[in-house]
Amino acid sequence: MVSDPPPETSGDRVPVDYKSAGVDIDAGHEAVRRIRMLARRTFSPSVISDIGSFGGLFRPDLAGVEDPVLVASADGVGTKLKVAFLANRHDTVGIDLVNHCVNDIIVQGARPLFFMDYLATGRLSPGVTEAVVGGMASACSDNKCALLGGETAEMPGFYADGEYDLAGFIVGLVDRARLVDGQRIQAGDVLIGLPSTGLHTNGYSLARHILFDVLKLTVESTPAELDGAVGDVLLRPHRSYLPVVGPVLDDGQIKIKGLAHVTGGGLTDNVPRVFPEGVAAEIDCRSWTPAPIFRFLQEQGHLSVAEAYRTFNMGIGMVVVSAPEDATALISAFEKAGELEAVIIGQTTHGDGTITYI
Amino acid sequence: MVSDPPPETSGDRVPVDYKSAGVDIDAGHEAVRRIRMLARRTFSPSVISDIGSFGGLFRPDLAGVEDPVLVASADGVGTKLKVAFLANRHDTVGIDLVNHCVNDIIVQGARPLFFMDYLATGRLSPGVTEAVVGGMASACSDNKCALLGGETAEMPGFYADGEYDLAGFIVGLVDRARLVDGQRIQAGDVLIGLPSTGLHTNGYSLARHILFDVLKLTVESTPAELDGAVGDVLLRPHRSYLPVVGPVLDDGQIKIKGLAHVTGGGLTDNVPRVFPEGVAAEIDCRSWTPAPIFRFLQEQGHLSVAEAYRTFNMGIGMVVVSAPEDATALISAFEKAGELEAVIIGQTTHGDGTITYI
Repeated sequence: MVSDPPPETSGDRVPVDYKSAGVDIDAGHEAVRRIRMLARRTFSPSVISDIGSFGGLFRPDLAGVEDPVLVASADGVGTKLKVAFLANRHDTVGIDLVNHCVNDIIVQGARPLFFMDYLATGRLSPGVTEAVVGGMASACSDNKCALLGGETAEMPGFYADGEYDLAGFIVGLVDRARLVDGQRIQAGDVLIGLPSTGLHTNGYSLARHILFDVLKLTVESTPAELDGAVGDVLLRPHRSYLPVVGPVLDDGQIKIKGLAHVTGGGLTDNVPRVFPEGVAAEIDCRSWTPAPIFRFLQEQGHLSVAEAYRTFNMGIGMVVVSAPEDATALISAFEKAGELEAVIIGQTTHGDGTITYI
Repeated sequence: MVSDPPPETSGDRVPVDYKSAGVDIDAGHEAVRRIRMLARRTFSPSVISDIGSFGGLFRPDLAGVEDPVLVASADGVGTKLKVAFLANRHDTVGIDLVNHCVNDIIVQGARPLFFMDYLATGRLSPGVTEAVVGGMASACSDNKCALLGGETAEMPGFYADGEYDLAGFIVGLVDRARLVDGQRIQAGDVLIGLPSTGLHTNGYSLARHILFDVLKLTVESTPAELDGAVGDVLLRPHRSYLPVVGPVLDDGQIKIKGLAHVTGGGLTDNVPRVFPEGVAAEIDCRSWTPAPIFRFLQEQGHLSVAEAYRTFNMGIGMVVVSAPEDATALISAFEKAGELEAVIIGQTTHGDGTITYI
């Protein structure tokens, strides 16, 4: 294998290198180093690869699992990111992303195994990257979920300076017999609402339009109607319902018939996703008090009930469906897990999958 | 549960709705309908959910698997997307994404189980969405991988009109004893190169800079040095090596010590990723002929060998490491699988993880 090296090109023009084309491989390496450190803290003994291998390796603990089913979900943070850019605060959006993903799989009865992220930006800032990934890593730890890997893409000319997009992917596990799938829901069942911490990750295009374009507020504004500055209220992290719902599912004594994560489309679109054919529901909007941000947006945006409840979660981030005789025990179990504001918000009826607000 | 409906808001201003804020939920629903149809065609009996449930459900076939290990990877297409926008051709980037992900897990010995995508855009065009997802679905079918779900995000003000970003996540399975991890690679082993179909998904920022900014070419240009129009050459899909490498791994008769997928960082950065401590390699660049696009970019960009081989795959998309006595049998096996251009491109040496081009 003796041969000459390939000829070096030469010319009068300055050589074009990758940095002048906008991609900084060295900044990328520094960002990767920081990410590895943060991710490694989330590793359980199930993780048998290191960050940096082509694929992340995860050896699930299948002891006692008779018929393992993987439950996976992909999500983004949406235009909540724009609020993070305005506030120049990057530690919360990673939490949003992880918790959103976790909620999307626990509604089927699964527990998280691992999470991966995609972070794309115009020009990598190791500081911002570290804040974003730090948020993800801390939320992964809180949810006992490994941050198994991810992709950090520097895409010059794609994203405005200082902006980025973020996607997350989660894989969880459930024994098939313990799947929660809503198939046994029938008319006369009860809907229990678990409170949200704010807008979570949906409705931000409309919220930003109302707050920033129409009302001309800034992230620093503190309108009397809100319980904090606009930026702080809007950036409150999407909550994970694992600590509240997980123990009840683990215990298995009280039957949960269905779980709906209230994301884009609000209660209107998400609750019927878990209904079998022939079921609808009535929700009594007086049974809970939406946080000030929801009332403010509805009022200032002149939103109809239909529009508001199909855009925002309106204060309810997860809905639990159970037989009426199990509702009290469930609410007590949620209280025991630290959730004191679970409340019956409605009931299922015969119908065609629609939600009626009464 | 009898109560009055919540008061409708009223006012002189026209109500602000989600469409005026830039998000079109109905276009989203139409896009979701088309995606469901495309995805459903990729479903195997292992998929036990429908698209539209909160999480996708996948029941892996674990028959004969003693110690199941999940192998997962997240990837993007990078600025190759910009070429798709310029050419207004959206059916190839989804193929790129899936095949990139597949390659990232087969290098560890895994077979794909399922794939999920994240597609973010400023304003959803159902036609473009269908083309992108159609490409993903067809590549998923080719790789016997279910398109289990995904997230389609409409993010007004985030992406330029007609532009989008795309991320993919894959999960595969391997029995732990069959993991390919490079740990037995030692000095004197052989590197076998499998040809790429083009740039695959890396180096596009530099390639676009050279071709479009410096040389002022367009996607329609047909420079004599290239084997096709610039747009066609640049958009050639990233190839999946599963049909070539899979049968050899399945058969298990010929030992593959390590597999490296040549992505960002080129041969220079990716081949050493599978080396244990104390191993380096020499690669003989004369052992294969890079496709015209690589020679054109290197020459026109006045790129040094170091820069070119750390930015582009230079014609080799996957590297297989084996003991020297197994190389001939491996090359024959690859030929039997349809790959006639597998070639020995170098050998491992004692060293510190660097690649020397000779």
